[in-house]
Amino acid sequence: MRMFNKVTIIGVGLIGGSIGLAVKKSGLAEEVTGVFRRSSTMKKALKRKSVDKGTMSVRDGMHDADLIILATPVSSIPLLARDAVDFAKEGAIITDVGSTKRWITAQIDKMTSRSGIFFVGSHPMAGSEHTGVEFARDDLMEGAPCIVVKTVKTRRSALRKVTRFWRALGAEVEVMSPSRHDKSVSLISHLPHIIAFSLAGAVPAKEIAYAAEGFKDTTRVASSDPELWADIFMTNKAEVVKAGKLFINYFNTIKKALSDGDYGKLVRILRRSKAKRDKFVIYGKKR
Amino acid sequence: MRMFNKVTIIGVGLIGGSIGLAVKKSGLAEEVTGVFRRSSTMKKALKRKSVDKGTMSVRDGMHDADLIILATPVSSIPLLARDAVDFAKEGAIITDVGSTKRWITAQIDKMTSRSGIFFVGSHPMAGSEHTGVEFARDDLMEGAPCIVVKTVKTRRSALRKVTRFWRALGAEVEVMSPSRHDKSVSLISHLPHIIAFSLAGAVPAKEIAYAAEGFKDTTRVASSDPELWADIFMTNKAEVVKAGKLFINYFNTIKKALSDGDYGKLVRILRRSKAKRDKFVIYGKKR
Repeated sequence: MRMFNKVTIIGVGLIGGSIGLAVKKSGLAEEVTGVFRRSSTMKKALKRKSVDKGTMSVRDGMHDADLIILATPVSSIPLLARDAVDFAKEGAIITDVGSTKRWITAQIDKMTSRSGIFFVGSHPMAGSEHTGVEFARDDLMEGAPCIVVKTVKTRRSALRKVTRFWRALGAEVEVMSPSRHDKSVSLISHLPHIIAFSLAGAVPAKEIAYAAEGFKDTTRVASSDPELWADIFMTNKAEVVKAGKLFINYFNTIKKALSDGDYGKLVRILRRSKAKRDKFVIYGKKR
Repeated sequence: MRMFNKVTIIGVGLIGGSIGLAVKKSGLAEEVTGVFRRSSTMKKALKRKSVDKGTMSVRDGMHDADLIILATPVSSIPLLARDAVDFAKEGAIITDVGSTKRWITAQIDKMTSRSGIFFVGSHPMAGSEHTGVEFARDDLMEGAPCIVVKTVKTRRSALRKVTRFWRALGAEVEVMSPSRHDKSVSLISHLPHIIAFSLAGAVPAKEIAYAAEGFKDTTRVASSDPELWADIFMTNKAEVVKAGKLFINYFNTIKKALSDGDYGKLVRILRRSKAKRDKFVIYGKKR
């Protein structure tokens, strides 16, 4: 099903590369162009056919594109949107895959008003602790939640197209405001990352030698890219700090029941947690 | 390689059932008997051939056993050791699979002195959030760390036998004191569980609908059995509370760097965590 003539992906890593593969597989675009910072990555991406064409020039890559996907770390997304305003053709749609949305949309909405190009922020919640196009998979978006954000500046036709685009790649799309998004992800994504980083950091290295499955899974995302995540935390600071407080309160409730030797209360708290976690397994498909 | 004539497993769930399968597969014993509380579990275990024989009587099960493995929740282990003192034959060796060791060994060491039976505490660190003999696997112990504890009361010959037993099942055995064990597991196992229970409990259910891989793995062990874990936490209270403090300190350091907007410091902290977590992947085999 052809939706676009030319789709351009800026930043072809795990996410950008997976989108490229999926767009090509589904035939959503006549052509997929990737924009790279390193020629070594470009070679890898072309070899793996994540994109049809590659360029190191943002200007060339954006030229004549119908859909531009900004798949770089959060802090660089507004800068690239500025380039799109300068280089993209009239009517082009820009989206992104950034993990925070309020900070990004506030800046880009200002740039794009009366520019003739349309921005719709997205956040496909797929990926892993790995980075790099070598981990890209054409089915990464299948069954993944994808939040698309809507602001007072969002053009309806562009929102519809972006929504259809992610659905065509198999994602389960929800439309919400940037603030709503940032609150949700602070709890279900940013908080788990801070917790994993804290646990891996706090446990002395010599103890880790005995660790098994529980530690492995609880800390898995601590192998994520530090700069990428520092970026995400910084651009969603207020919500992340709030989520942290919620967590610490719960943690302290458990600790208190334990210190008090209140077995009954401890079991009740743990049961409530288990019930919520058990339900989660049922919701998702590929989770 | 035959090591024992009769091995008896009290409590044939995930761990007990897996040990039964592995003992039978490796030919370490002439006969494996399981002791059950419910006839329905006994039927399941016999059908899956986790044990050769089943009984609901602790006395009958322990009769004439050379090795008795207590694979029940922590709080019931000392009570069953008391039964072993009464019912097991002279020279029998008892071990357990309990997740805390100081509380258990302190009680059992007292009972067994001058009883003619020998206790050596163990903690095979295998398993999952699932419980029940239906999840038992004959390779669960392969590559799993297994801590065997040594106290002033431990008989050397029994320690050697128990150590050889776990190694024969494929576990990687370390011998240490009960206190050393309890400190280690408070950090690498009990703390991750408390964290997972806290995270699953703290995040509002309506947000969990959008959650993806990060939340899934970080909270996996929150699906564990609440009574079982309340038991474990309660019998290792002091160490668990200490481990919790260590974690909260690290968490607060991250939170402070974030609140201060100190990107450089934040990245340095996350890098340190990532370096430790990345190393962990290399240590283990099947992890």
